[in-house]
Amino acid sequence: MSPSDASPTASPLSQPAVDTDALIIGAGPAGLFQAFQLGLQGIQAHLVDALPHIGGQCSQLYGHKPIYDIPGIPVCTGQELVQLLEAQIAPMAVPRNLSQQVETVRPLDDGRWQVGTTAGTVFHARTVFIAAGVGAFVPKALKVPGVEALAADQLFYHPSQLDMVQGRTVVIYGGDEEAVNAAIQCSAEDGAKAAKTYLMHRRDAFNAEPAQLAQLQQLRDNGAIEVLIGQITEVQPNGELLKSVQWMDGDGNEHPLPTELLLVFQGISPRLGPLTDWGLALERKQLLVDPATLATSAQGIYAIGDIVSYPGKKRLILCAFHEATMAAFAAAEYLQGHKPLLEYTTTSARLHSILGVSHS
Amino acid sequence: MSPSDASPTASPLSQPAVDTDALIIGAGPAGLFQAFQLGLQGIQAHLVDALPHIGGQCSQLYGHKPIYDIPGIPVCTGQELVQLLEAQIAPMAVPRNLSQQVETVRPLDDGRWQVGTTAGTVFHARTVFIAAGVGAFVPKALKVPGVEALAADQLFYHPSQLDMVQGRTVVIYGGDEEAVNAAIQCSAEDGAKAAKTYLMHRRDAFNAEPAQLAQLQQLRDNGAIEVLIGQITEVQPNGELLKSVQWMDGDGNEHPLPTELLLVFQGISPRLGPLTDWGLALERKQLLVDPATLATSAQGIYAIGDIVSYPGKKRLILCAFHEATMAAFAAAEYLQGHKPLLEYTTTSARLHSILGVSHS
Repeated sequence: MSPSDASPTASPLSQPAVDTDALIIGAGPAGLFQAFQLGLQGIQAHLVDALPHIGGQCSQLYGHKPIYDIPGIPVCTGQELVQLLEAQIAPMAVPRNLSQQVETVRPLDDGRWQVGTTAGTVFHARTVFIAAGVGAFVPKALKVPGVEALAADQLFYHPSQLDMVQGRTVVIYGGDEEAVNAAIQCSAEDGAKAAKTYLMHRRDAFNAEPAQLAQLQQLRDNGAIEVLIGQITEVQPNGELLKSVQWMDGDGNEHPLPTELLLVFQGISPRLGPLTDWGLALERKQLLVDPATLATSAQGIYAIGDIVSYPGKKRLILCAFHEATMAAFAAAEYLQGHKPLLEYTTTSARLHSILGVSHS
Repeated sequence: MSPSDASPTASPLSQPAVDTDALIIGAGPAGLFQAFQLGLQGIQAHLVDALPHIGGQCSQLYGHKPIYDIPGIPVCTGQELVQLLEAQIAPMAVPRNLSQQVETVRPLDDGRWQVGTTAGTVFHARTVFIAAGVGAFVPKALKVPGVEALAADQLFYHPSQLDMVQGRTVVIYGGDEEAVNAAIQCSAEDGAKAAKTYLMHRRDAFNAEPAQLAQLQQLRDNGAIEVLIGQITEVQPNGELLKSVQWMDGDGNEHPLPTELLLVFQGISPRLGPLTDWGLALERKQLLVDPATLATSAQGIYAIGDIVSYPGKKRLILCAFHEATMAAFAAAEYLQGHKPLLEYTTTSARLHSILGVSHS
């Protein structure tokens, strides 16, 4: 079996809540290994992550950079580690609820937790594991007057596909590789065929590979992309439609720019976000846990990885693996009412059955 | 650089003590990763192990069996894990002091520890890390009258080479694969050429591969090996020479058997041994440690892995990796007088230099 990508289309009103023994918030290395250790305890978990893919920080911040201190792996990139963990947890067939941030965590009368996400998914979870690293990776918002009045089909943050630009006037706002690629995709012959492509950045210097910069220059030269140096100061909706943005050039002069779509690439950064409102004991933005169980101050809620604090805590991936293991044992005792046996994957027939391997 | 195999020929009287910042007792996965984490802190360690090779339990008990719960390694054998760890710690060039068990640990006046081994090696160590698993793996001793009077060249436990049998009458005592192999090696045409080979076991059933059993049968058939079913009841030294062993057959009748050498294969099993005499706080044969630092009750002595106890402790390899890391940070603070910075192997130029990798 391969893990299924649960589609985040449920709304709390139209769709029943998903009942689960365990919900893991964060699909970075810590959350993935949490799912593995829960699986070894016979506990099926669901994963939730704000990013559209698993891997968290490990993919986002050092996907192509080498890591040397994972025990038994002399060197691997962040992305390679995520792939190895993905292979390791494959027997657990963990449903993934991606591209959605957990917004609310509220206690139910029966001791379970009701967890709601930005995609409208609602879980009723007997245990919750917060493996949220330094927070959910969310795009930096555009903060100018008028932006809150825009409809969801007028403003896009870091869109991964660009079909919506076809035949429209589009402003791409940003100077990094993703912004440059989007401008190229919107305007190139074989691309998404926008009617008109503007690329706006605060200075005439873009951060991309030489080949992409060359292609950008060529598209600027032939008029397919118009680069504007300046900053958006206001967006001007007209009823529900985006009609234009107001922008200021390097000399401080403001101009209106008619446009239909605004694609914002101001970077993706981690935010603890609503987690700080869930009533859990925090110390300097870290969750206080018991290192023997990784239990937070709320019964049934555990936390592991970079988000937790306990005496001696080191923010290293290999420590999160240990924490996931301790938390799985503690949760198994909480859910099953008795202390689980310590069994070894080398010798236990029960674990072999869970892992889908057979031994004579 | 490759790690050097320190030769255990030093005697405490003839050879000066080895000064070291860190001595690691036990070269299993926990001890190997301890050397790695100390290395990242800039602390050079020495390894000591009772076995003639690194790997400890992992090599001895499940060298060829699969392990499924090392994070990021979906499956590996014990031996493969040891090889991966060996590659990972290669940059640290850790001296190995093998085939010797630590016997004594005594405080020196300057706060260091004097550590003596069965090979006569003496260390003066500023910190000691006990990663001794379930104890030193030592051969099960033959416990019959007369055995304590035998000389070292008359009785061998699990010898790894058999040159000494040439032209001699030899009794091989045991029924496992190693015993069968030794009997074949002693008696085969291209082998070690004993004058006469006896293989004694308590029943006529041997635990070995089919090909080895077939070879054994052939050598029995042609008289090169004489199999005796029974148990040794006494050894009879004659002065310093072994003259014969007394043995009892299945019917309870005793016989003398003239022999010159006795090779005993009764298995290798872990023993805590002298560790229990070092004055460290123990609870049910486990060392009590602070989980934040892995410090024992003695200043400068840390313990990790299967030998320690703290609230929630799980005897899993992946937990020992975390413990090695915590202990290395604690020892670095103890040795260097200030809390070490947490640095990442992905980004730290200092760590890249230690690891021997260069990054632009």
